[in-house]
Amino acid sequence: TLSYSDAAARGFRDWLARKYQSPDALNRAWGNVFWSMDYADWDEIDLPHLTVTEPNPAHVLDFRRYSSDQVVAFNRVQTDALRPLTDRPLIHNYMGLTRGATDFDHFDVGADLDIASWDSYPLGFLMDRVDGADADHQSRYLRQGDPDFQALHHDLYRAVGHGRWWVMEQQPGPVNWAPWNPAPLPGMARLWAWEAIAHGAEAVCYFRWRQAPFAQEQHHAGLLRPDSGPAPGLSETSEVAREIADLGQIEPARASAALMFDYQAGWVFDTQPQGADFTYFGLVLDAYRALRRAGLSIDILPPDAALDGYRLILAPGLAIMPDDLKSRLANSDATVIVGPRSGAKTTDGAIPVPLPPALPGLDATVNFVESLPPGADVPFADGPGAFIRWSEDLDTRADVVVATEHGTPALVRSDRLHYLAGWPDREGWDRIVSLAATDAGLATVMLPRGLRLRETAAHVFAFNYAPVALDWNGETIPPAGVRWWPKQDDDTA
Amino acid sequence: TLSYSDAAARGFRDWLARKYQSPDALNRAWGNVFWSMDYADWDEIDLPHLTVTEPNPAHVLDFRRYSSDQVVAFNRVQTDALRPLTDRPLIHNYMGLTRGATDFDHFDVGADLDIASWDSYPLGFLMDRVDGADADHQSRYLRQGDPDFQALHHDLYRAVGHGRWWVMEQQPGPVNWAPWNPAPLPGMARLWAWEAIAHGAEAVCYFRWRQAPFAQEQHHAGLLRPDSGPAPGLSETSEVAREIADLGQIEPARASAALMFDYQAGWVFDTQPQGADFTYFGLVLDAYRALRRAGLSIDILPPDAALDGYRLILAPGLAIMPDDLKSRLANSDATVIVGPRSGAKTTDGAIPVPLPPALPGLDATVNFVESLPPGADVPFADGPGAFIRWSEDLDTRADVVVATEHGTPALVRSDRLHYLAGWPDREGWDRIVSLAATDAGLATVMLPRGLRLRETAAHVFAFNYAPVALDWNGETIPPAGVRWWPKQDDDTA
Amino acid sequence: TLSYSDAAARGFRDWLARKYQSPDALNRAWGNVFWSMDYADWDEIDLPHLTVTEPNPAHVLDFRRYSSDQVVAFNRVQTDALRPLTDRPLIHNYMGLTRGATDFDHFDVGADLDIASWDSYPLGFLMDRVDGADADHQSRYLRQGDPDFQALHHDLYRAVGHGRWWVMEQQPGPVNWAPWNPAPLPGMARLWAWEAIAHGAEAVCYFRWRQAPFAQEQHHAGLLRPDSGPAPGLSETSEVAREIADLGQIEPARASAALMFDYQAGWVFDTQPQGADFTYFGLVLDAYRALRRAGLSIDILPPDAALDGYRLILAPGLAIMPDDLKSRLANSDATVIVGPRSGAKTTDGAIPVPLPPALPGLDATVNFVESLPPGADVPFADGPGAFIRWSEDLDTRADVVVATEHGTPALVRSDRLHYLAGWPDREGWDRIVSLAATDAGLATVMLPRGLRLRETAAHVFAFNYAPVALDWNGETIPPAGVRWWPKQDDDTA
Repeated sequence: TLSYSDAAARGFRDWLARKYQSPDALNRAWGNVFWSMDYADWDEIDLPHLTVTEPNPAHVLDFRRYSSDQVVAFNRVQTDALRPLTDRPLIHNYMGLTRGATDFDHFDVGADLDIASWDSYPLGFLMDRVDGADADHQSRYLRQGDPDFQALHHDLYRAVGHGRWWVMEQQPGPVNWAPWNPAPLPGMARLWAWEAIAHGAEAVCYFRWRQAPFAQEQHHAGLLRPDSGPAPGLSETSEVAREIADLGQIEPARASAALMFDYQAGWVFDTQPQGADFTYFGLVLDAYRALRRAGLSIDILPPDAALDGYRLILAPGLAIMPDDLKSRLANSDATVIVGPRSGAKTTDGAIPVPLPPALPGLDATVNFVESLPPGADVPFADGPGAFIRWSEDLDTRADVVVATEHGTPALVRSDRLHYLAGWPDREGWDRIVSLAATDAGLATVMLPRGLRLRETAAHVFAFNYAPVALDWNGETIPPAGVRWWPKQDDDTA
Repeated sequence: TLSYSDAAARGFRDWLARKYQSPDALNRAWGNVFWSMDYADWDEIDLPHLTVTEPNPAHVLDFRRYSSDQVVAFNRVQTDALRPLTDRPLIHNYMGLTRGATDFDHFDVGADLDIASWDSYPLGFLMDRVDGADADHQSRYLRQGDPDFQALHHDLYRAVGHGRWWVMEQQPGPVNWAPWNPAPLPGMARLWAWEAIAHGAEAVCYFRWRQAPFAQEQHHAGLLRPDSGPAPGLSETSEVAREIADLGQIEPARASAALMFDYQAGWVFDTQPQGADFTYFGLVLDAYRALRRAGLSIDILPPDAALDGYRLILAPGLAIMPDDLKSRLANSDATVIVGPRSGAKTTDGAIPVPLPPALPGLDATVNFVESLPPGADVPFADGPGAFIRWSEDLDTRADVVVATEHGTPALVRSDRLHYLAGWPDREGWDRIVSLAATDAGLATVMLPRGLRLRETAAHVFAFNYAPVALDWNGETIPPAGVRWWPKQDDDTA
Repeated sequence: TLSYSDAAARGFRDWLARKYQSPDALNRAWGNVFWSMDYADWDEIDLPHLTVTEPNPAHVLDFRRYSSDQVVAFNRVQTDALRPLTDRPLIHNYMGLTRGATDFDHFDVGADLDIASWDSYPLGFLMDRVDGADADHQSRYLRQGDPDFQALHHDLYRAVGHGRWWVMEQQPGPVNWAPWNPAPLPGMARLWAWEAIAHGAEAVCYFRWRQAPFAQEQHHAGLLRPDSGPAPGLSETSEVAREIADLGQIEPARASAALMFDYQAGWVFDTQPQGADFTYFGLVLDAYRALRRAGLSIDILPPDAALDGYRLILAPGLAIMPDDLKSRLANSDATVIVGPRSGAKTTDGAIPVPLPPALPGLDATVNFVESLPPGADVPFADGPGAFIRWSEDLDTRADVVVATEHGTPALVRSDRLHYLAGWPDREGWDRIVSLAATDAGLATVMLPRGLRLRETAAHVFAFNYAPVALDWNGETIPPAGVRWWPKQDDDTA
């Protein structure tokens, strides 16, 4: 959805003229004086490509915003046409996010629709796009898919759909488009469906009913084989249907833990990663994984969401933080962890002065930043964990909750507002989530590797993504197994 | 030899019109309805590139056939011009096949020529194109070349030349075009020549006589140095000439084992590999290696070859199997191993219904297929071996000769007709070839690593490709050594 | 600075016409007859790209010379304009050389200027361009930079500036343009400045004073933070200024060891590396590293430099050696090591006959050459060391100083003139430099890993690039530490 056509260039100039009103205002906002790139006229502004070295990142950021707005506008042409003709809910399907982030703001598109949906291909995604999935991880979850990637999308699209969401396409067997295409472990077609339902999905549709034997997707499995014989996914799907009928209406529960997500932050860090492996979505996914490993159910929040009722809020990599957002987080009743790189940019994509994070009531200033190549971890002191990929040097007089082994602050706090000065590894995230959950009064667990939980209004569901049987809550859950129990009162503690 | 020019597009449309007669027939054959890509007119059909996602694989397959036909036609222009002018045999030189396969059907071109020849560069090929040659393999055979890659081409071009073939260019020393260009081990210029002669070569020509000191190939060795001094290959070449004179006429022997080879299968799997490391030629080479490790001499057969007299026939990856071919294989007296992915496509490049392999008298249906990333092997039960890269789930009531450790069928049979449901690793191939050879009444051996044999009418030749001396038949053969013995009666057993 | 524009093509044809006077002369010089590529007219000559296989290397070499001449001419336009207007010295800044070499002859440009300068970014360079820096090396020197890469450039640009040179841009903290951008170890901003000064820099300027918070380089550190607070580099820079004031005028010393450097050799091996990892600059850097590990101070010499006064001269990879240069090296009083690949090309880029190296008084002829992939080392006999990447087979009756374990000559000599028949690994270079220095009567040391020395007229400086403290000369030098001592008489022995 990024177009470098002449039409896009004309539209972009028009969009800029409406935003900035004068080339001088644009020059100031972008800092064009830096390489003597001041524009005298809108027509001098090209799309941000084919430059001698690199385009101004502010130029790129506005282009990404413009491009996102075009997607929103295109969708609105259709909703405007349909609304007078129907009272039915309008729906569209989104995709699994690739490394980095995505090309348009799904919250903005979602504002014009009634239901969000997405296409969930756990095995294909593990092979081609799950950030942080090294060969070991891909091998362990080869036929199950990543334990958290789909769940994060379920939560994200529930937010995009204002609570209403579907799986529009669910992988039922081997697909045709990933670098390698293994078959799901027996039981996974059922597990994936139940994970979605436990996250509040109103519908789980499969792509596809019958595998068409010809043309482009002929090697993409369906619920039926090309000869209309039953494919392995069919009986599992039938089993889920029976189980849903038995269990009755499944109501979602509001989570106590939240993760803030801003598409615009992805555009900022796509443009200025500063480290070759720094991606916004990768950072968010790592935070999400840690919350899941601790047994928590999670809500994804857009930056303008109401924060009431949440006990724990994570806001990593939230590049641009308006003052109002900073105030709401600082004044929230929740335990809040902001950073790394949160508040690191002005709305115009510059470094703010006063320097980041500039959070109300928290004395902490980022003195300088480092991106870290693989192997150059910065270990934490007094316990497990380390920073990988990203580390910040803080000037601070705030309480240091976690320090690095060099004695520099890794996590600082003032009351319940925390700033995290780097990208933790798995052990680091587990330590930080555990500290924060304790501070928030949230009960956590340390789940066996590959087990995940999700609460609904009345039940706790357990999903075994591991290739081995796992014990939980007095039961042995086989690989690809799903269990649920009525929720105890203290499950929501 | 793939051209995306306007002329190619015009020619392709004409070729399609002659083949299909009507756009509707083409639409049905390609399954264009799938993504609503039906054509109303020949002029709407472009070459299969620059598509939004991917072209229809049937579209690609026909383009590959068309492109191959153009090579055949171009060659025929020349043979048509020459035939009235000369009674001499006509010859052209082919190349070492790259990973995947090649751009035209050599059997079709060979039908218009009298002698096939090829350019044999063992060290360069090992560095830049031998499928399955990892760093260890490249290191071990750095100065000798792959033990089987040249032999397979000798056998292939003997088939292309209907028995008459040459080496048109033989590497005599370091070349200039591979990523790295080591020198052959002393003796290899002789060994390579004898391997060719033992495979029936009528001539072995060297590229080149004298190393020209200027222009593009100035670092490509010859038999003479740039100053006309003798290069290392010269004395070895002279030695071969003396040995040939001593030995007298060397008659080829027909092999008892055969490997079926279809250029068209390479085009199919180039287009739809389904796994990032699945190549047709790599699969064929692995099968060939196993036959060679067992000490067998091999004939390569085109799909329309007569099968009489062969005791063992392998047909892996034979994507498109006409009914007539299935019948001939099923009715052959030989032990036959078909698969994996054999019969997996119709002539139009679709999945056949009834599902593959649909072999006469063998109850076996491929239920679903998996491509396997490195490390995701599927081990065999009750002995060595595993599937790598590719595995199929079979519905079958046939005899299971080898099963996987999950209990699924790996090799099934009905009488002498076998179906192989995956891509075996080295141990797996050795086990299967041993079982099949026993079934066929063919004596096999397990050769020391790097030793290879080849039978002629009167002799058995042994070639040591290993960097160390090896013992065989009561003799110690040094690295790069060649030995031959008069053939015993039981050598043909 | 390589342009493939129409204007470049016209200029190139004109340049060729002036050089060769007739297309026939050009055809003979380039050897165009080889692939029947003789030109009949200047207008038939295109730039050396978009060819079916590869361009003639002689064609490329002339294009590189032409392109370099254009840079020289462009610079001269400016010096011609400035000279009448000012008596001030004219200066321009060069860059850190990338793998391979560089696009123009800096000695030629330097001839029109008074002072050479360069932009020194040790951490960025280690991440993106230091030849031979594998992951271990990058990890060890992550926050210090390569111990030799800057020093070599200091020596090179001192030669380019005829003794006068500056650091125009010195990295003061994390930069924004490398794949990863760590912060320097505390002390490195001081160490880097002192290393430059000890090499004779007249000035060390920092890029930049204040980190601008907007536009393209907003993540590039300065001596001040974006909010004008002090960045870590500021206090170290102030410390250097105080130390310089204390120490007084620092006079450079002429080195006893020299390394010959020819930009043209880089163009030759860029065009015909013959091995995927053969780069001229990498070879020179490896030789330089060995001299530095032995504690030597080094002068870089252009091929036409006077050789008087040097005791040890290395000339690796000097592709084109005019007869005059060969004579001067052979008749020098110094111990001289020529090779590998020195004298391997005529001025026209062909292989010379008589074959290389054809050094006066040294009976040695390169019989054939090998490029070696990683792991295919050729070990030396009777001690440590091996050839990596490149090995030559010599016909020689000269004294063999070092042989390979195959018994072939690795280093041969006649009196003080040596020829080196390959690319040594670290141990091999150390062995060869030690032998040669002993022959030359130069005292050497074996420095602890990461320690480096540099002599000025009155002092010996020591620099600790290691991440750990090192002992030297009775002192313990911390990481990033700098020490200096008054020079003893025998330091120049």
